[in-house]
Amino acid sequence: MSDLPASIHVNEEGPREGFQFEKGLIPTARKIGLIDVLSQTGLDHIQIVSFVNPNLVPGMADADEVVDGIAPRPGIEYTALWLNEKGFERALKHDNRLALTGTIQLCTSEKFLKRNQNRTLEQQLAGQHAIVELYKAHGVPVERGSVMAAFGCNFEGDIPIARVVSLVSQILDVAAAHGVTLRYVTLADTMAWATPLSIKRVVGSLRERWPDLDIALHLHDTRGMAIANAYAGLEMGVTRFDSSVAGLGGCPFAGHSGAAGNVCTEDLVFLCHEMGIETGIDLDALIECARLAEDVVGHPLPGSVMKGGTLQKYRV
Amino acid sequence: MSDLPASIHVNEEGPREGFQFEKGLIPTARKIGLIDVLSQTGLDHIQIVSFVNPNLVPGMADADEVVDGIAPRPGIEYTALWLNEKGFERALKHDNRLALTGTIQLCTSEKFLKRNQNRTLEQQLAGQHAIVELYKAHGVPVERGSVMAAFGCNFEGDIPIARVVSLVSQILDVAAAHGVTLRYVTLADTMAWATPLSIKRVVGSLRERWPDLDIALHLHDTRGMAIANAYAGLEMGVTRFDSSVAGLGGCPFAGHSGAAGNVCTEDLVFLCHEMGIETGIDLDALIECARLAEDVVGHPLPGSVMKGGTLQKYRV
Repeated sequence: MSDLPASIHVNEEGPREGFQFEKGLIPTARKIGLIDVLSQTGLDHIQIVSFVNPNLVPGMADADEVVDGIAPRPGIEYTALWLNEKGFERALKHDNRLALTGTIQLCTSEKFLKRNQNRTLEQQLAGQHAIVELYKAHGVPVERGSVMAAFGCNFEGDIPIARVVSLVSQILDVAAAHGVTLRYVTLADTMAWATPLSIKRVVGSLRERWPDLDIALHLHDTRGMAIANAYAGLEMGVTRFDSSVAGLGGCPFAGHSGAAGNVCTEDLVFLCHEMGIETGIDLDALIECARLAEDVVGHPLPGSVMKGGTLQKYRV
Repeated sequence: MSDLPASIHVNEEGPREGFQFEKGLIPTARKIGLIDVLSQTGLDHIQIVSFVNPNLVPGMADADEVVDGIAPRPGIEYTALWLNEKGFERALKHDNRLALTGTIQLCTSEKFLKRNQNRTLEQQLAGQHAIVELYKAHGVPVERGSVMAAFGCNFEGDIPIARVVSLVSQILDVAAAHGVTLRYVTLADTMAWATPLSIKRVVGSLRERWPDLDIALHLHDTRGMAIANAYAGLEMGVTRFDSSVAGLGGCPFAGHSGAAGNVCTEDLVFLCHEMGIETGIDLDALIECARLAEDVVGHPLPGSVMKGGTLQKYRV
């Protein structure tokens, strides 16, 4: 009955997702405090900031201070997000603290690209060649491919699976053209269109073409499907998941209607542990972080296990 | 890839679950209003009240008035819950409006039974024989078996699958002893212990023993697993689900820490429709009901699709 993987790897994105999303300004020291307790849970990969325009994303204006302020713990990769060369250059200044890795990223939806970046799919592809060269010039390893809106798009509707397969092929071609080998490709359900069935179909189609390709999932919970989608991924043997402690990154319960963060980390870890899948994470410690995250942002967050509790105390 | 069922049957329990749970007293007219709009969504089975001790459950003190006040719509079965003979007698008075059906119910956990009803498993079984005779004496059909705490218990811990199989066997024996044929057996995850894996294992074990037994799932969402558990049920061919509009029955976001209602009806319907499974329900109308439910109880409810919206508007 169980073809589930023995263990998974969790990429915690709560600090980055949450701090860039929250409307109210959070004191830098509190951001650092949350990252530092997350560092004590067994998580080995935490995305802590994004280097973006502070005029557009005021919550990230203190990104440099956050990176400088944390108490880095050995064995943990602290990462950052950037969207352009300028952001990358800011990240480079922290190469002693941050694990900088490059991503080759394509989006399934030309309408989304045109609207957001005024680019065609072709221009997007050309841009990826340029950015890989930039990473190489700075000695930054290119480890990850990423397909945005892999399961559907608010501007283009349903996305044919063949297009996702084609984009992954293009990503692998870009990597090969520059002599880099990707460790994995992330499928991002950017606008929360996925169902467990589409997760299985898309992952299955990629596996058919590239049996050894390591696939990661980035699942948003806007329609409450994220944990079911993660389970479908587990059933397909997916072992890498982005997630957000307490479901940081959106709060449907505080008037931010329609928005929701990534799949909630502690709910994902609970799901895994209860099914015998190792995560290397101390769930009780993680739940304490989730409660702290609510205190830091000052309103309820959507995570369930932080409220419902674990089952260990009932077992004799 | 898809062995999912073509259609499912939803048993809406939001009114009963919600009104008995909410702390503040809700005006009877508002309860009736919610039930009446639920009657216009395509739902054909709505549990509207429980006949319980009003001193213990003040929210159900007006159960008789609620039943008398609704505008019954042809084709819909309105049902009620009761826990003892006294409650059943109250329900009997409404047999012109309510679809009264009897349940043979056993609980997996003797510790739970002793604590809550001061009964042993053996006494519980004897009680079921007596109640079936009572139903027969009143001409009430006995259609359903039910296993409480089928996936785990806060007082007893993990429940061996063999015990669930044994209880279903006892339920079927009780039915046979009184010459009644059950339409289905509900597995209730009363204390929210289930994972998709345990859903598959328990349902699979029952299917092995009784290939033609119709199984229903009653899934609580205390730990955020309900929609993933429902998906696992769908993958096992389960076609009957209890659910609560807006996730009524508990509100982890309003200080009722740890409690949560049934799987949210509109989230379940969204999941099904997006995977090509028919429900007969108008999802947009149901989402309006969920919003009304929030207004009726006066605080946010946990449903996601009511906040995140459906996908139809993005499809051209």
